[in-house]
Amino acid sequence: MKGFFNLVTSSRLQALLADLEPVAAETLPIDEVIGRVVARDVFAGEDLPPFSRSTMDGFAVRARDSFGASESEPALFSVSGEVRMGEDGTGVCVRPGQAVRIWTGGQLPAGADAVVMLEYAREIGQDMIEVFRAVAPSENIIERGQDYRKGEMVFPKGTRLRAQELGVLAGLGILEVEVRKQPLAVVISTGDELVPREESPPPGKIRDINTTTISALCRADGCRVFRMGIIPDSYEDMLDACRKALEMEADLVLVSGGSSVGNRDFTMKVFRDLEGSELLVHGVSIRPGKPTLVAKRGNAVLFGLPGHVGSAMVVYWLFVRHAISVLLGADPEKGVIKAPAICSEHFPSVIGREDYVRVALERSYTEEGKPVLMARPVHGKSGLISTLVKADGLLVIPRDVEGYHGGEYGEVIIFP
Amino acid sequence: MKGFFNLVTSSRLQALLADLEPVAAETLPIDEVIGRVVARDVFAGEDLPPFSRSTMDGFAVRARDSFGASESEPALFSVSGEVRMGEDGTGVCVRPGQAVRIWTGGQLPAGADAVVMLEYAREIGQDMIEVFRAVAPSENIIERGQDYRKGEMVFPKGTRLRAQELGVLAGLGILEVEVRKQPLAVVISTGDELVPREESPPPGKIRDINTTTISALCRADGCRVFRMGIIPDSYEDMLDACRKALEMEADLVLVSGGSSVGNRDFTMKVFRDLEGSELLVHGVSIRPGKPTLVAKRGNAVLFGLPGHVGSAMVVYWLFVRHAISVLLGADPEKGVIKAPAICSEHFPSVIGREDYVRVALERSYTEEGKPVLMARPVHGKSGLISTLVKADGLLVIPRDVEGYHGGEYGEVIIFP
Repeated sequence: MKGFFNLVTSSRLQALLADLEPVAAETLPIDEVIGRVVARDVFAGEDLPPFSRSTMDGFAVRARDSFGASESEPALFSVSGEVRMGEDGTGVCVRPGQAVRIWTGGQLPAGADAVVMLEYAREIGQDMIEVFRAVAPSENIIERGQDYRKGEMVFPKGTRLRAQELGVLAGLGILEVEVRKQPLAVVISTGDELVPREESPPPGKIRDINTTTISALCRADGCRVFRMGIIPDSYEDMLDACRKALEMEADLVLVSGGSSVGNRDFTMKVFRDLEGSELLVHGVSIRPGKPTLVAKRGNAVLFGLPGHVGSAMVVYWLFVRHAISVLLGADPEKGVIKAPAICSEHFPSVIGREDYVRVALERSYTEEGKPVLMARPVHGKSGLISTLVKADGLLVIPRDVEGYHGGEYGEVIIFP
Repeated sequence: MKGFFNLVTSSRLQALLADLEPVAAETLPIDEVIGRVVARDVFAGEDLPPFSRSTMDGFAVRARDSFGASESEPALFSVSGEVRMGEDGTGVCVRPGQAVRIWTGGQLPAGADAVVMLEYAREIGQDMIEVFRAVAPSENIIERGQDYRKGEMVFPKGTRLRAQELGVLAGLGILEVEVRKQPLAVVISTGDELVPREESPPPGKIRDINTTTISALCRADGCRVFRMGIIPDSYEDMLDACRKALEMEADLVLVSGGSSVGNRDFTMKVFRDLEGSELLVHGVSIRPGKPTLVAKRGNAVLFGLPGHVGSAMVVYWLFVRHAISVLLGADPEKGVIKAPAICSEHFPSVIGREDYVRVALERSYTEEGKPVLMARPVHGKSGLISTLVKADGLLVIPRDVEGYHGGEYGEVIIFP
C-alpha cells in the first residue's frame, strides 16, 4: 500500500545511528574548543597542583603538634618563618613545635602537613602563637597532584569541553588539544509552496522557515552548515541536491518539507536510489515526527524531516542531535538535559506511540512542600511555530503509557 | 576589625545588580543573533501563516456537510477540483456538498473551513468520494494569522533568541533585528604565585587557570572578552589595571585571585578608591564564594572573585551571569536551568549560610516508581578543579536549611 509506514521506535532509530564513525580530528588552541569534543585521551604531563598548597591564610604546622589543642588548653608554637606568595616553600622547614606563616595558595613548607587558620591562632608575643583548635593531617591544604597526577588520564576521548575542562588544560599547560572537526550539515528545504525568506510570498506560498531553524540548531550543536536553499518538489531536483551534498562530503544531509504523501514518496525514493545509500527508516512511532526518513550513505546520514517546523524541530532534537553526538564521538545522552516534572493536567496519549508534548515549565511545590517542576501543556496545533516559542521543553510520554493524569510525573527534555 | 566581613545574602547581591542599565543595541542579520537578546519589541508586519493552510493531505470541505458522517452512513461529496502545492487556493471555491483535493501546506480554498484526511475518504467513482468520519470546523487547518497577526507583538524586548524565535522572524520576513550588543568583560588575574599558562611554573608558582575559565564562561554567555593577564599583588598595579579596564569602557571587570586577606584588602581598597566607584558588597553569606567583592562605577560592575577556581566559578554562575543578563536586558532567572533533585545522602550545612555543593546527577526512581534526578555529592576539597569536572551542577542549600538528609529534595542549578 502506497504511503504505508513501517514504523520504528525512537530507541530503535537511535540504535541505528550508533555505528556512525566519529568525524576526523583537528588540533586547536584551547581558547577555541569550548563545546568541542576531545578526539584522543588527554593525559597530565605534570602534577596539578604542582606542589602542596595552603587553602587558607594561617600557619603551616605538623598536625600532630596541635592534637588536643582547645580554647582552654591551647598548643604553643614558635613562628620560625613565613612563606610568601609565589615563594619556594621548600626552602623553609617546619620542625616539631614550629609554625610558619602562610597565605592562601602558598606552597607548604617542608615538614608541615596541615595549616591552622588565622582565626584559630593567637599571637602571644615575639614569634609565639597559641593554637586553640587542633588540625588533622592534610587539613586546609591541597596536596601536590591531588587534582591530577602526572601520567594520569585527565579526560577520555569523547569528553565535551566546558569552561572547567579548559581550566584543567590551562592548569596543566596543555595549550592545544585534539578535538573532533565540526561535522558538515547540508540543509535542504523542499516544497513548491516555499519562497526564500527574503521574498514576499504570492498567494498560496509562504516563506521557508526550516532552513533558518535547522541551520541555527546545527550551528548551536557544533556543525558547519551549508544551505542548499529551496529545491523544487521533484525527484530529479532532489536527487541532484542530495548528490551535490554528498559530493561536498556532508556528514549530515537534512531535507525538510515534503510532508505530503506524494512528496515524501519521492524523497524516500531519492534516499533509496542514491548510489551506495541505504534507507534505514521510513516512519517513526512518535508524535509529532511520524513521517521521518533516515538513510545512510557511507558514514553520512540523511534525514527527511517533516515539513511542519514544530515537527521538524522535535525530530531534530531527538535524532539529528543524537547523530551529531555520535559523529563527534560523544555520549548522546550527555548532550540532553532531562528532568522529571509533575503534570499540571491530563496529557492524553495512546499505547504504542511516544508523544513529545510542548510544555512550559514553572517552579512549584508538592503538598508536602517538596520543590518540583510543573509541566503545563502549551496549547495550540503542532503546526504552529508560536507553540515552540512558548515552550521550555518537551514532555516525553513513553510508548507503554496511555498519557499522564494531572499530578503524575513525567520526564521533560529541557530546551538548551 | 581587619578582615571583618559585612556579609550580604545572595538575593541581596542580585537585587543590588538590578538597576544596571542594558547596554546599547545594534541591528544584525537574523543568522547572527542566536542567543542574543532583543532590544526593542518586535511586531509582525504581516499575518503568519499568510493564509489558512491544510495540515493534512485530503479534501477541503465545509465541515457542516460532514456532520453525522460515519462508517455506516458516510457523507457524499463531489470532488470539484484540486489546490496544488503553492497554488493560490482562493481561485477555487467549495460549495455545499463539494470537496477539493488539497495537500499538506496547501492554501484552503474559498468556502472551505476544514479538511478531511485522505484516510477517512473513499473514492467511489468519477469525482465522487464518501467521507466516513465527520470533521469539526477548523479541523486539520491552521488559520491565517493563527501564529501571529499583523501588528501583534511577536517578542517583547528582553527575549532571548533561540532557533524557534529565528524561525518566526524568517517566517515573517524580518531579516534584521535590534539586539543588545555583547557586553565587554575585562578579565584580570592577580596573585604573585601565578604565571601565564604557557610558562613552566618555578617552585611555589602555578599556572593561571582563572583567566581561561572566566573568559570561556563570559564568551559562552555572550560577552566580548579582553584579557588583562596577571597583575602583580599590589595596590598600584591593580588600580592601574582597573582604570585601564574602565577606560576601555568595560561593562564588567572581573578580578580573580586575591583570596588571602591582605590581597583581598587591596582589591577592596582599589574598588573603593576608583574615581566614581561605589563598593557595594564585601562578602556574601555563601559557600564557596564568601570573599566576593562587588562595586559599581557608572553602569560598569566590578567583581572581586575568589582565587580558587571552583569558588570563582560558583560566584560567576550566581552573580556574574546574573549581571550579564541584566546588562542584556533579559530576565536573569530565565538563563538558569534549575531542577529539583533527591539527595543521595546527607548534605550538611548551617543556618545563615547558603551552600552550593557540586553534585553529579543521575536518573533514578522513587519507591513509588516516580522518575527523579538523584544528586550525589562530588567529594573532594572545594579548591580542586577536578571536582568541577566531575560535577553536573550545584545543589543549593538555602540559608534557612540546616542541610539535607538523604532522600530529601533540593534544587540543583544544572551546568549548561
